[in-house]
Amino acid sequence: MFLVGDIGGTNARFAIARTTDDQGIVISDFEKFNAQQFDRFDDTMNKFVEGIGVRPSLAVLAVAGPIHNGEVKLTNRSWQLNANDLSRSCRIDEVCLMNDFTAMAFSVTRIGDDSYIDLKQGKALDNAPMLVAGPGTGFGSCLLIPSNGEYHALACEGGHSLFVPRSDLDRAVLDILSRKHDAVSVERICGGGYLDELTAAIAEIHGVQTPALTPQEIIENGEAGDALCRDICQIRADVIISSLANMALVGGARGGIVVAGGVARHLSKFLTDKKTIERFAAVWPQGDFLQHIPIRLLVNPLAPLVGAAAHYLRYENNE
Amino acid sequence: MFLVGDIGGTNARFAIARTTDDQGIVISDFEKFNAQQFDRFDDTMNKFVEGIGVRPSLAVLAVAGPIHNGEVKLTNRSWQLNANDLSRSCRIDEVCLMNDFTAMAFSVTRIGDDSYIDLKQGKALDNAPMLVAGPGTGFGSCLLIPSNGEYHALACEGGHSLFVPRSDLDRAVLDILSRKHDAVSVERICGGGYLDELTAAIAEIHGVQTPALTPQEIIENGEAGDALCRDICQIRADVIISSLANMALVGGARGGIVVAGGVARHLSKFLTDKKTIERFAAVWPQGDFLQHIPIRLLVNPLAPLVGAAAHYLRYENNE
Repeated sequence: MFLVGDIGGTNARFAIARTTDDQGIVISDFEKFNAQQFDRFDDTMNKFVEGIGVRPSLAVLAVAGPIHNGEVKLTNRSWQLNANDLSRSCRIDEVCLMNDFTAMAFSVTRIGDDSYIDLKQGKALDNAPMLVAGPGTGFGSCLLIPSNGEYHALACEGGHSLFVPRSDLDRAVLDILSRKHDAVSVERICGGGYLDELTAAIAEIHGVQTPALTPQEIIENGEAGDALCRDICQIRADVIISSLANMALVGGARGGIVVAGGVARHLSKFLTDKKTIERFAAVWPQGDFLQHIPIRLLVNPLAPLVGAAAHYLRYENNE
Repeated sequence: MFLVGDIGGTNARFAIARTTDDQGIVISDFEKFNAQQFDRFDDTMNKFVEGIGVRPSLAVLAVAGPIHNGEVKLTNRSWQLNANDLSRSCRIDEVCLMNDFTAMAFSVTRIGDDSYIDLKQGKALDNAPMLVAGPGTGFGSCLLIPSNGEYHALACEGGHSLFVPRSDLDRAVLDILSRKHDAVSVERICGGGYLDELTAAIAEIHGVQTPALTPQEIIENGEAGDALCRDICQIRADVIISSLANMALVGGARGGIVVAGGVARHLSKFLTDKKTIERFAAVWPQGDFLQHIPIRLLVNPLAPLVGAAAHYLRYENNE
């Protein structure tokens, strides 16, 4: 058994991973912590370990940020994680850090169909790249490149690519955000970390005061038909789908697309809308490249934990 | 010795390739044919073969279009090429077809520094993907993915991704082209095959009649400072650079970027402008990802021929 973690800008999730005789991975003892309630990451992980009553000798952590030399600064939070320091302060022999979207991507090769909602039917091409991308606090993207019968995960930064306006609402939002920012990225529209600014922009377009709503309230009100909240949810869903089309063309992702991330999961009602999904193939209506690509929404919140475990085991086996 | 060809929407180029004792590739007998002067591709290739006076037993052709089962329909021309039919009608034992951007990408591993103009200094990351992309008649893109010490070419369709407007000129052009097209791609702005439509749009913005100018005249007049032609060249150069930034983020191209294609080559005066290049890193000003990526303009028109030969030899050696 070993500890697995999924450390994002908003939540830190931990669990215990065990392997089965047939190379399966079982996740148990799942617990979620609100990151804002802890000054130091060590305290969060120690609290989890104390709760389960056993101190594991290995921790594999998927973290929302680029890893360099066993260290990572979270993209959307002030936490800095260092594998050696964590090993000491949490008394865990080995701490392994990996990018959360790399973990997310590896989960795709391990989890079943019940972890997904189908957004778009299609026919995945054998031996072609897959794209795993979507918004949580930020907007992660990863290409899975087939290589000698398995996949090699290529962590990318597609969420920082520029957002392409396609509707009147898109253009109005771009005009407002462009006053403050030279570049308006996909992440800035879809990422949970930028919701306040998007809400203010859409309130301005509606000519009303910016409402004081939680992210969850915005989605609930949007689903219930409130015009302002619906626009917020709709633009995020639209931009997710448009940017996936651009990313699929650039990365040759004919092997299929998995939409991942907590925000994507919460926007499922908008992402499953037929009109929203039609934006995908409409990016290149003359070609059949996009038409054939299947898109699935990853709705299993344990997926990054499975992926972290899978990636670690694979790495260990290859050593 | 064997025949190599580079078959685009506007020109067909042929040459003879020879290998040297140290695995080098020497290209000779280069000849360029205007595709419009020939109804059938066979006639063009036969004319070249008759000119050199020797009938080679092998032809390796880099073609602007997707290859399926030894057959390709050119993306921007009515020609359809079939390897078996060509072998018969041109009396060449073996005809091998490959995508032109795959060939272009493979040339990058074979040609010297004098084949390039540096557009942006940087530090290529070892063992990271490279991006080879740019406009000819269309807009090709290819990711070179490092794998076990060599590169694997991943032919992509980045040119069909949506064009992101960033300047007033960009937005005005998008408004005009959007009247006719649901989606305005990077290719539609930069590709040689779409120049008439772009010229008409910019003439409309300038409030003048669409001028009857050849592509070469537009570039010459633009370089000389003519306002209309300068805008045409500038928007194409700007959109090339912006789209390369988006593609680099999506494809993780920290190994460097090579701007390829005949149109890119002809726009060198605009692409080498400091202000144009500054658009690249400005796509993600907060991160240092784009800042470090070097960009080079491929100015050697023989590169696809070298790449076609290199790809064939590698394939043959791996059999």
